[in-house]
Amino acid sequence: MFTLHHHPFCPFSRTIRIAMGEYGIGAEFIEERTWERRREFLEINPANNLPVLLVGQAGKVVGVRPILEFLDETKGASLGPRRLMPADPYDRAEVRRLLDWFDGNMNNEVTSYLVTEKIYKRFMKAEHGGGAPDTRLILAGSKNLRTHLAYISHLAVRRNWLAGETLSYADLTAAAHLSCLDYLGDVPWEDFEHAKHWYARVKSRPSFRPLLVDQVPGVRPAPSYVDLDF
Amino acid sequence: MFTLHHHPFCPFSRTIRIAMGEYGIGAEFIEERTWERRREFLEINPANNLPVLLVGQAGKVVGVRPILEFLDETKGASLGPRRLMPADPYDRAEVRRLLDWFDGNMNNEVTSYLVTEKIYKRFMKAEHGGGAPDTRLILAGSKNLRTHLAYISHLAVRRNWLAGETLSYADLTAAAHLSCLDYLGDVPWEDFEHAKHWYARVKSRPSFRPLLVDQVPGVRPAPSYVDLDF
Repeated sequence: MFTLHHHPFCPFSRTIRIAMGEYGIGAEFIEERTWERRREFLEINPANNLPVLLVGQAGKVVGVRPILEFLDETKGASLGPRRLMPADPYDRAEVRRLLDWFDGNMNNEVTSYLVTEKIYKRFMKAEHGGGAPDTRLILAGSKNLRTHLAYISHLAVRRNWLAGETLSYADLTAAAHLSCLDYLGDVPWEDFEHAKHWYARVKSRPSFRPLLVDQVPGVRPAPSYVDLDF
Repeated sequence: MFTLHHHPFCPFSRTIRIAMGEYGIGAEFIEERTWERRREFLEINPANNLPVLLVGQAGKVVGVRPILEFLDETKGASLGPRRLMPADPYDRAEVRRLLDWFDGNMNNEVTSYLVTEKIYKRFMKAEHGGGAPDTRLILAGSKNLRTHLAYISHLAVRRNWLAGETLSYADLTAAAHLSCLDYLGDVPWEDFEHAKHWYARVKSRPSFRPLLVDQVPGVRPAPSYVDLDF
C-alpha cells in the first residue's frame, strides 16, 4: 500500500506520479500545500519538501531523487527491458546528470518561477507570500525556458530518448516540468519542433494520463494541454 | 586512470575526494575556477558545475550525486562491510535524503554564502562577481549554520553515524561542507558537542587527510582546522 504526499503542480511530485504509472503502482494521493506548513505533514517530513512516499505502515522515502532510486531498486527489474534506469553505470550517470539539470537548473530558472507566480500564489495567503504574480519573474522564466527547450531539442535530435536509446527517468522528469508549463500555455512549441515531437511521445504514454486531468480552480489549462496531437 | 576536475573549497568536490580516499582510488586533480568559464572545461561539461570525474579515455561522470552513485555501483562491493551505501533500500533512501539536505538546504543556506563571500570572491575579478565580502550574507550563513549543527547533533545522538549504523555518503557529505566552514573558523563547535564528536571521528579518517593540507593563499586556516583533537 503506497501513499504519496504531493501537489498536482509540483514537478517533482509529477515525476513520481508518472513513474508510478510506468511501474503500474497505485497509491493514495494526499495533496499538500507546503506553504501552509501542515503540522501532520511536518511530522512526516520536517524538511517540508515534496514528494514523500509512504509504503505500508513504516516505510518512508522523502524527495524525488530518493524515491526514483528506491523505485528502481525495488521495482525496476519488474519492467524488464522497459526499466527506467539503464544497466550500464555510465548510462545511469547520464540519466542522473540530466535529473540534476532538469530538477536543478531548469527548475530554478523556469518551472519554479512560473508555477509559483501563476499557480501557487493564487492559493497562498498574504502571510505565506501570496499576492499578484511578479511579471518580472514570469518574463525571466519564459525567457530561460527557450534555452531549456533548445537543449531538449538538441538531445532529442541526437538520441532516441533524452538520455540514450531507452525511455528513462530523464524523460519523465523533463516532461513533468514541461507539463506544468504546458498547462499554463507557456511553452512555445512551434519554435522547438524536436522537443515538441519528443514531448508528444512521452505525453501519449498511459502513465501520463492522470496528469492531464489535473485542474487548477480559476486557471483553465491551455487548449493544447490535453491534446495528444497538439 | 581517474581525473577529477574540482575546486579545493567546493564542498561537492571535497565529498568526492574523501570518497575516493575511502575507495583507495588515486586521481589526477585539475583545479577549476568555474567563474572563469575555462573553455576546455566547458567542452567537458557545458553546465560548468563541479566536480567532474573522467575515467580513462572516454568515461565521464558529471556532478556529485552521479559520481557518488557511480562509485558505489562500480567500486562499492570492494569495500565489503565498509560499503558507503547500505544494502537495505530504505536505508539507502535515508542516505540520499541526507545528501539532499546537506547539498541542497545546507549548501544554499550556509556553505555557499560563506565560501563564496570569504574565499571565491578573493579570486574573482570584478566582472565575475568579485569584490568585498557581503557581510549580510556572511551573517545569514553563520546564523543558519547553527540550525544545521543542531540537526547534525540531533542525528549524532540517536545514531552511530548520521544515516544509521555504518559510515555512509551522508557523513562524508556533511563533513565536506563543515570542513570548508571549519577552515574559515566559522563553526561554533563548543555549542554543539555531539556534532563536534561526530566530526572528529570523520576528520580522523585517512581519507580526510588530503583536505587538511589545502590552503587558500591569503586565508590562513583556523588553528583547529588540522588538529584532530580540536
